[in-house]
Amino acid sequence: MFTLLKTSSESSARRGQLLTAHGPVETPTFMPVGTQGTVKALSQQELWAMGFRLILGNTYHLHLRPGEPLIQRAGGLHGFITWNGAILTDSGGFQVFSLEDLRKITEEGVLFKSHIDGSEHFFSPEGVMDIQLALGSDILMAFDECAPHPSDHAYTRAAMERTHRWAVRCRDRWRQRRDQDPALYGQLFGIVQGGSYLDLRSESARAIADLDLPGIAIGGVSVGEPKETMFEVVAHTAPLLPADRPRYLMGVGTPEDLLDGVGEGIDMFDCVLPSRLGRNGSAYTSVGRINIKNARYSDDFRPVDPNCSEWCCREHSAAYIRHLYKSDEILASRVLSYHNMAFYGRLMAGIRAAIEDDRFLQFRRDFIARYRGGEDTPDE
Amino acid sequence: MFTLLKTSSESSARRGQLLTAHGPVETPTFMPVGTQGTVKALSQQELWAMGFRLILGNTYHLHLRPGEPLIQRAGGLHGFITWNGAILTDSGGFQVFSLEDLRKITEEGVLFKSHIDGSEHFFSPEGVMDIQLALGSDILMAFDECAPHPSDHAYTRAAMERTHRWAVRCRDRWRQRRDQDPALYGQLFGIVQGGSYLDLRSESARAIADLDLPGIAIGGVSVGEPKETMFEVVAHTAPLLPADRPRYLMGVGTPEDLLDGVGEGIDMFDCVLPSRLGRNGSAYTSVGRINIKNARYSDDFRPVDPNCSEWCCREHSAAYIRHLYKSDEILASRVLSYHNMAFYGRLMAGIRAAIEDDRFLQFRRDFIARYRGGEDTPDE
Repeated sequence: MFTLLKTSSESSARRGQLLTAHGPVETPTFMPVGTQGTVKALSQQELWAMGFRLILGNTYHLHLRPGEPLIQRAGGLHGFITWNGAILTDSGGFQVFSLEDLRKITEEGVLFKSHIDGSEHFFSPEGVMDIQLALGSDILMAFDECAPHPSDHAYTRAAMERTHRWAVRCRDRWRQRRDQDPALYGQLFGIVQGGSYLDLRSESARAIADLDLPGIAIGGVSVGEPKETMFEVVAHTAPLLPADRPRYLMGVGTPEDLLDGVGEGIDMFDCVLPSRLGRNGSAYTSVGRINIKNARYSDDFRPVDPNCSEWCCREHSAAYIRHLYKSDEILASRVLSYHNMAFYGRLMAGIRAAIEDDRFLQFRRDFIARYRGGEDTPDE
Repeated sequence: MFTLLKTSSESSARRGQLLTAHGPVETPTFMPVGTQGTVKALSQQELWAMGFRLILGNTYHLHLRPGEPLIQRAGGLHGFITWNGAILTDSGGFQVFSLEDLRKITEEGVLFKSHIDGSEHFFSPEGVMDIQLALGSDILMAFDECAPHPSDHAYTRAAMERTHRWAVRCRDRWRQRRDQDPALYGQLFGIVQGGSYLDLRSESARAIADLDLPGIAIGGVSVGEPKETMFEVVAHTAPLLPADRPRYLMGVGTPEDLLDGVGEGIDMFDCVLPSRLGRNGSAYTSVGRINIKNARYSDDFRPVDPNCSEWCCREHSAAYIRHLYKSDEILASRVLSYHNMAFYGRLMAGIRAAIEDDRFLQFRRDFIARYRGGEDTPDE
């Protein structure tokens, strides 16, 4: 299902194509996050027009509301939300393990209470496969335990080993279901855990690779550890993964992170940053991230990013967008979410073209030189 | 500036064209309300694509934030928000009089405190003209006192008489400014007041008509009086207005209200209903207004309105929109605001075509028969 089209001669960057039941996805790719069946503030048509062909849905949220039986009656998640591209669903593991006081973990699975109405639910590896198959996901993620950062070696090992046992159960259920019903098309990805411990990452990479799944994710990063640690883990782990399978770095990241991840051989990314920051008044530009709340933009009738030719910057000025943001207007979230997502889309398209031309490192240098030369504001 | 193209032979309905500095506006027309320089949840491009050519801005809100000096530097409100159609601004009278504990009324004008930061501001008839000219409005509204409902005859008369004196001051200032600067293009509309007292409405219609302004509005309706009272006032007042000037019924209304108003010879309407109800989960359909929160839609994979061919109904089901609404997603506001505004746009286009063919009463009967036959839900 994954074709490696080109490998960089100067880095581990790869250009590939992931074939799904809903069309091809050019990699490296960034997946917009549509937690509840919508990428916040954007329409499916807008995402498609920006060039995205693979978006993410969230099993935990969609299971609780509206529930996979309803979505299945609607023709699966594609039919329910009207998206003709591909969909990856996460396993819900990250969410249910984050519930802390509201969940109970056993070897069988996790009993948890809904954040919406307090109702009790149980996620097992098998159940999570069934939910994702009911959703009609193109890519299913295995049910994993993501240890929080910091966790000690023993705890991290225990979580990792459970993740491995659960991955086997996921694979078995997924195979069994597909054997019974040839119409099921979803591909299962395994998840490598092991926290910031490189020995555990090696062990986990081996264990997950041995499952011979269509793709592998690196999980448990971007969970609070320092950025250097994250890339130490990625640089260590990525080369241990089979070269002929897509590699997905979960929950990452900033534009710099995407460039760094691609340089280590990552093919897929997802992150809420572009839409969340958009709703919070931050815009990515070719010279750095800016904060539209800043008073300097109140009288700035130039576009947020002169290098953006989308409607957000073609039609609207920083001053107008700032006014919309200060006035709590929905159009502010729309414009900035659109702008940021289009920025990510262009960045990935630029990365793919650069790898094709074997000039990825130059592309990254140029991007970073411009980006860091700008007025990137600290987190606000 | 106003051309009467056709008059209904069986009712007072009129088909006209209002020529503004930003193009022609076909009447009868409905004006989407862009209080703070944006029609909530919609983009200017979407409004344009729906066929709207005249939208409303709010002087009170835009004066407080971001302020007319900034908007003037941006090239006026058209430049600031990027809208190539026409803009009508209200006078702010309705808002400042609604402030109750935060305002002090004198013959000179109204001293009030900003709802945003408590800062003091003063609106006079002359000042309000200057603000609207700075905004670059195509249509300016006179500064009026809108008596709340119910008010007794004496209070309503006093408010009306002040409105008349202020209208003279508005006209004088507007004429003086235009005489000084031929580049100013805004047309001033006067406002008829008089509450639910028909004798006062007659007096006010005469007084405002005598000012010989480019257009006349009927104000002080839709302020809490019963619907029958409103249409008694409209039916009484509209025929007293000069036939060669556009007639604007302020703050009205529901689809039925628009049909009734057109039947009385009204040319222009504005109302927050289509967008506000959209944000609150209500959708207009050809068979009545529906409440998407209703459990009956949870499993309804049909469009909200099968007679709507816009993306809202072409792409999305009632069940999906209900899910978005229940999940507090911005896309719910987008889809329903778009749907409702497009519904209003189609209704007005249908009204205009019907008047042209001299079948307005039949059009109204057909619409109401279908609309009332539906599942119109009570206000929720």
